[in-house]
Amino acid sequence: MGLAVGVIGGGQLARMMIPAAIRLGVELRVLAESEHASAGLAATAVGDHRDAETVLGFARGVDVVTFDHEHVPQPVLAALVAAGATVRPGPDALRHAQDKLEMRARLEELGVPQPEWAAVSSAAELAAFLAEHGGVAVVKTPRGGYDGKGVRVVRDAGEAADWLAAGPPLLVEERVGFVRELAQQIARRPGGESALYPLVESTQRDGVCAEVIAPAPHGGRVAQAAARIATSIADGLGVTGMLAVELFETDDERVLVNELAMRPHNSGHWSIEGAVTDQFEQHLRAVLDLPLGSTELRAPWTVMVNVLGGPADGDLDRCRRLALADQPTAALHLYGKDPRPGRKIGHVTACGPDLDDAAFVARAAAAAFD
Amino acid sequence: MGLAVGVIGGGQLARMMIPAAIRLGVELRVLAESEHASAGLAATAVGDHRDAETVLGFARGVDVVTFDHEHVPQPVLAALVAAGATVRPGPDALRHAQDKLEMRARLEELGVPQPEWAAVSSAAELAAFLAEHGGVAVVKTPRGGYDGKGVRVVRDAGEAADWLAAGPPLLVEERVGFVRELAQQIARRPGGESALYPLVESTQRDGVCAEVIAPAPHGGRVAQAAARIATSIADGLGVTGMLAVELFETDDERVLVNELAMRPHNSGHWSIEGAVTDQFEQHLRAVLDLPLGSTELRAPWTVMVNVLGGPADGDLDRCRRLALADQPTAALHLYGKDPRPGRKIGHVTACGPDLDDAAFVARAAAAAFD
Repeated sequence: MGLAVGVIGGGQLARMMIPAAIRLGVELRVLAESEHASAGLAATAVGDHRDAETVLGFARGVDVVTFDHEHVPQPVLAALVAAGATVRPGPDALRHAQDKLEMRARLEELGVPQPEWAAVSSAAELAAFLAEHGGVAVVKTPRGGYDGKGVRVVRDAGEAADWLAAGPPLLVEERVGFVRELAQQIARRPGGESALYPLVESTQRDGVCAEVIAPAPHGGRVAQAAARIATSIADGLGVTGMLAVELFETDDERVLVNELAMRPHNSGHWSIEGAVTDQFEQHLRAVLDLPLGSTELRAPWTVMVNVLGGPADGDLDRCRRLALADQPTAALHLYGKDPRPGRKIGHVTACGPDLDDAAFVARAAAAAFD
Repeated sequence: MGLAVGVIGGGQLARMMIPAAIRLGVELRVLAESEHASAGLAATAVGDHRDAETVLGFARGVDVVTFDHEHVPQPVLAALVAAGATVRPGPDALRHAQDKLEMRARLEELGVPQPEWAAVSSAAELAAFLAEHGGVAVVKTPRGGYDGKGVRVVRDAGEAADWLAAGPPLLVEERVGFVRELAQQIARRPGGESALYPLVESTQRDGVCAEVIAPAPHGGRVAQAAARIATSIADGLGVTGMLAVELFETDDERVLVNELAMRPHNSGHWSIEGAVTDQFEQHLRAVLDLPLGSTELRAPWTVMVNVLGGPADGDLDRCRRLALADQPTAALHLYGKDPRPGRKIGHVTACGPDLDDAAFVARAAAAAFD
């Protein structure tokens, strides 16, 4: 029999693993949240990823279990491992993508550059951190945040009172004066072989990734620093699969780690058209311990623009027709999701020898969905 | 609700439409021959494409019916149309891809250059054709042939005696002294909008496509002729969807039509990596009457090599690992089919600025499956 990968979570990341699995000739099985999940086509089970029995039942018979998101609780992961399942990335690596306090503490041990930070459990501790950092800081709930959720810029400890009252310590970080955000993708196999992607520049709007340019313009020195950082983290944490390291480039040319994701990531969608091996196929190769593919660029410039929200009238058919008609060189990716304000329902990619042209094409095609 | 395409036939062509449907956000439903069909992932029905009731049941609720192969009988197609289904390509176009005698007669009316041919029903008629064409000819069963099956080079009418005895007239063609084989892909929407792909060169071994180079080296004048021919045929026959025109380039620089296929075709697999819009997405766009995508090359050279047969010991996992390890820049496509001598079980594509390099990579990766 052939190889089978089980993916926990049926979002667009699992959806975009399907073409990669088809190409490689491996079976992809998805544990989806609902029958209408984005990756529903490959769903072999529908259920709750927090329920150990559901997850154990799903994992039976697959060669490796991997993830669409990082929300599977550690006890469930432990049960999987205890049952003999191969889980990649493993629980010990994954907890650094699940808990931002664990991540900060471990990166400190590894000597990876990051913003100044502290764990705070009281208004007094938060006030002390604010006083030491110019009166402003970024407070994060260590778990469960995404796309700007669970993140607040605060100038007074009272602004985090509700989160502090909820109990567990919060992560507080200096507010970094950054000139831009970058992302570094790296794939790593169980034995340690790894493959770095070109550094990319990402633009966020309202805490959500809006646009990615590959490679990051004027990368130079920061690209070398980002590569070193991502390699240190992948090796230091023993990551298997894709790792995305979101970075700040500061106004004094430092590169600091913002966030980690141990799976294909929005900042790597450009690779479907822009790299010889895309992040979804690379993730499957890495978790299956297959040889990694080339991460070379396929075009001088690739620009990825997210389709956020979608049309207010819900008429995706009309928007798709418009996008395809207007921009015949754009690559459109829809996620099978209903329009809803702020929701990531797709993305558009354009490649070419000229950055401005590629950006125009991708933005224009995405704008057809406004 | 979104758009839904029904594909009759669950082979690798339907399989490779799945990623395109995922990208476009349209639903793909496949009527497969068996649960283990290559496109089984998207199968919503398993049954016989020659059975009208099966096909009508499958087609209910889809926006358009299209094909993985041309073997659906005309009465079944007529029943579909009578039931109100949208069928693309339509039965009147498709019969020219189903019956080589109908194809030859219609191309003659259209003034499209092709080998000299005749319909023969007896040994005497075949002998007469042989006598007029240097004592050698190519005899074809008008229906059901593929990959060299249903084709014989004969020097004596007796060599086709079994086929003649079977009843229906045969197609006999002059044996063309060709210097190479070419293929021209074109997509056409119902309203007539069409998009030509670059002309490609194909190499056959034992009547089966072995390798494709895009674009055809030294295309020049023949590329213009091929484009004119494909456009004439697509318009003249009212094709909707992808049309592949297989061509002979003769030693006196003529271009003659060999075969037609009204669907994605092996000679167009290179387009997955090599063109901005691949033939599978283009086929879906065309049959859904969506705007067509750009057919521009994404690299100066793309080489596609078929994986034929596969390992004698059946161990695809080992071969896949070897291919990926040896050629990290190759794009591997496996079809989920068990190895069997001569069977198309996958293909490999490589792109780049140098034709020899791309050919080396694709051939080496394919050779890992020998």
